[in-house]
Amino acid sequence: MTADLRYAAQDLIAVTEALFGAAGMDAEKARVIAPVLVEADLMGHTTHGLQLAPPYLAALTDGLMEGTGQPEVISDRGPVASWDGRRISGVWLTATAIDLAVDRAKAYGTCSIAIRRSHHIACLAAFLQRATDQGMMITLASSDPASGSVAPFNSITPLYTPDPIAVGIPTDGDPILIDISASITTNGLTGRLQQEGKKLPGNWVQDNAGTATDDPGVLFTDPPGSILPVGGQDHGHKGYGLALIVEALTQGLSGWGRADPNEGWGATVYIQVQDPAAFAGADAFKRQTGWLADACRRSTPRPGVDKVRLPGDGALARKRAALAEGVALYPGVIEGLSGWCEKLSVAPPNAI
Amino acid sequence: MTADLRYAAQDLIAVTEALFGAAGMDAEKARVIAPVLVEADLMGHTTHGLQLAPPYLAALTDGLMEGTGQPEVISDRGPVASWDGRRISGVWLTATAIDLAVDRAKAYGTCSIAIRRSHHIACLAAFLQRATDQGMMITLASSDPASGSVAPFNSITPLYTPDPIAVGIPTDGDPILIDISASITTNGLTGRLQQEGKKLPGNWVQDNAGTATDDPGVLFTDPPGSILPVGGQDHGHKGYGLALIVEALTQGLSGWGRADPNEGWGATVYIQVQDPAAFAGADAFKRQTGWLADACRRSTPRPGVDKVRLPGDGALARKRAALAEGVALYPGVIEGLSGWCEKLSVAPPNAI
Repeated sequence: MTADLRYAAQDLIAVTEALFGAAGMDAEKARVIAPVLVEADLMGHTTHGLQLAPPYLAALTDGLMEGTGQPEVISDRGPVASWDGRRISGVWLTATAIDLAVDRAKAYGTCSIAIRRSHHIACLAAFLQRATDQGMMITLASSDPASGSVAPFNSITPLYTPDPIAVGIPTDGDPILIDISASITTNGLTGRLQQEGKKLPGNWVQDNAGTATDDPGVLFTDPPGSILPVGGQDHGHKGYGLALIVEALTQGLSGWGRADPNEGWGATVYIQVQDPAAFAGADAFKRQTGWLADACRRSTPRPGVDKVRLPGDGALARKRAALAEGVALYPGVIEGLSGWCEKLSVAPPNAI
Repeated sequence: MTADLRYAAQDLIAVTEALFGAAGMDAEKARVIAPVLVEADLMGHTTHGLQLAPPYLAALTDGLMEGTGQPEVISDRGPVASWDGRRISGVWLTATAIDLAVDRAKAYGTCSIAIRRSHHIACLAAFLQRATDQGMMITLASSDPASGSVAPFNSITPLYTPDPIAVGIPTDGDPILIDISASITTNGLTGRLQQEGKKLPGNWVQDNAGTATDDPGVLFTDPPGSILPVGGQDHGHKGYGLALIVEALTQGLSGWGRADPNEGWGATVYIQVQDPAAFAGADAFKRQTGWLADACRRSTPRPGVDKVRLPGDGALARKRAALAEGVALYPGVIEGLSGWCEKLSVAPPNAI
């Protein structure tokens, strides 16, 4: 059994970087991508970490993900810009755009970048500390115009993607790291539970006749059922509204999306970075967010709950533990990585 | 009975403007405030329209709402600014800031304004067409640091406000007008249903022991129960995340909030306007949002639902009908207005 083995984060990063390089990715891009994927595993977001390395490597070698060159700049006014990603790795495009937006927010107070025709961007939460570590508030959203699994409120038609939106908020302590989708659950989790023969924790999907259920199998019928918007059949107009916001930020502002021909697995991306120092001041910002974070953590848990947490608390605790004790990868992940190591003649990581 | 009477929108606006002027509001401010309040009634958002005129007039005459002068500019970099609202009418501050942000977005591509120490801002949806009519995408969020009725996920402590966020999205047809709170329901609706002895449509609140219920009365016990975040006890980490985002945008960026002394009923406000023309182009934007709006409306409704709607469809239909046939005010609203007409020697509106 390999499930109990632990790996050093830097070893996983080195192997992942070597794999992407061996598969034809620019060295500079492989160097950016590897730590972002491992970051997701460190945080415990195991559906969006190294589990994605094999399909990414397959897309790269099949020519469905671009491994070289730069995005095409469609517009650039300084505080806003839009790029055509040319189907370059979405992890690299997103990290590169965030770093640029952080620099520009220092000058302008804010910077928004919309990216069309990116490849998939993996785990949104794994990018946030690039901005919060520099005192910036960041919003990151993505959607994939090539697929639809979530139904609008009151609809049974799977029409759009879970449409995640992640926000990083600096405080006077740990940052608040929010990563929510506009649907109750995700393609990643429903797919994994279906494969493992398990049920969802609640009635988070509906069958193709509109009956809410905890069975992920209803998404794989013909015609398929759909994932419910946040709020479900009770108050799903909230999740529906959030999805429309994300679709407009990503596909509207980048000018590419569901109205265009399907180019396969990919993403449209929206990034906004805001510098609290350009508003009422960095200290004034952290005084409010720190107060609120503290008040939430000190608030009274409901019966059966040990303590009230802030978004990101669990992920940051898992990350600290994984950095100290090694990363325990989700079952099957190391096998997927090792298969590509053999294929590309890269030495696999050794357990510690 | 007055509930069946209808009023011309322009008559309601004229009377409301006269009332605020007579109560000491600058004439220019009264002229801005009146149509925004009536707009909410036109759209059917009856808890946040003219129902608020009496408490606003009371706040103004009691010196709790400021009726004259300008906000203090704390910072201004062009694409971002922050103001101290000096407790001026929040409806006026918000409308004024949106108009400025629209102008600036034409130059910079984007503009964000955070406002501290505003008075209450009424109905967020009623402001959105100021921006969408000019082809702009707008985000408007508010929170009131002086009160707390919503509990964090897994908590029973009422800690923050419903924290609404509204987004206006231009399309090639009607704009999409989203106005959602981070909690399942609002202070306005729970208060009204409690007064009327009615129940909520679902288990949207919890009592002070953490049991979810449809009884709004649990919010008025000692200690009080709380409103549940969007997603409820099932997946309320989504609404909790959204609330933390709104609190950071409004109180964090404006540098004023729950960490400060309670100044009474008011608001902190965040506005962001983005010009699609500065990203991938106005037509490219509307091509995507129009396609999606059409696909949602054409999607298959679930059993028992007549058709799938876009956020704003109902409000815009109600607005068109009310402009054509007159406004039927919610029971009690005309009485509240008429009382202030008598007090301030303003002629009350005549029914049509």
